[in-house]
Amino acid sequence: MNDFNYQLLDEIIHSRIRLAVMALLISVEEAEFNYLKEKVKATDGNLSVHLKKLEEAEYISVKKEFIDRKPKTMYTLTKTGKTAFNQYLISLENLIKK
Amino acid sequence: MNDFNYQLLDEIIHSRIRLAVMALLISVEEAEFNYLKEKVKATDGNLSVHLKKLEEAEYISVKKEFIDRKPKTMYTLTKTGKTAFNQYLISLENLIKK
Repeated sequence: MNDFNYQLLDEIIHSRIRLAVMALLISVEEAEFNYLKEKVKATDGNLSVHLKKLEEAEYISVKKEFIDRKPKTMYTLTKTGKTAFNQYLISLENLIKK
Repeated sequence: MNDFNYQLLDEIIHSRIRLAVMALLISVEEAEFNYLKEKVKATDGNLSVHLKKLEEAEYISVKKEFIDRKPKTMYTLTKTGKTAFNQYLISLENLIKK
């Protein structure tokens, strides 16, 4: 049976940009800022704000690296983030299943 | 292949309360305000604001009725709302599929 209680959906994940970021990060080992930006189609500022929120929730971790002497910011899903995302998918499925 | 473009998710539907309302309404012929409130677990004020937004987008229609001399407000998904919701589910699936 469906559960329509909207509060079961993790509000940290359930914003369009953050959901897109989480879905992308669960499918790759790590992703660089510009790659995320290109895939998610968000602006720099907007993406940064949402990444910050995911980082504060400890759903993602951030690492600065130099590749070919250029600074790169790499993002990875944490274990907490993976658990939260899988739980989110279960709640979502319970909400929208027919 | 996944499409992580967050803008493909209809922002009118993609708010937790509105998504819960749409998911409920697609499964029933019509629903009364208090029934929606109980199922979605939203407060009166919050639910009203979100229902208004769905009505303005013409995703739902509203009808006032008297049942046992008591006023009831009934909500139904419109054809536009059904189409939008089905498109939303497709975009969502494209975003989160593994």
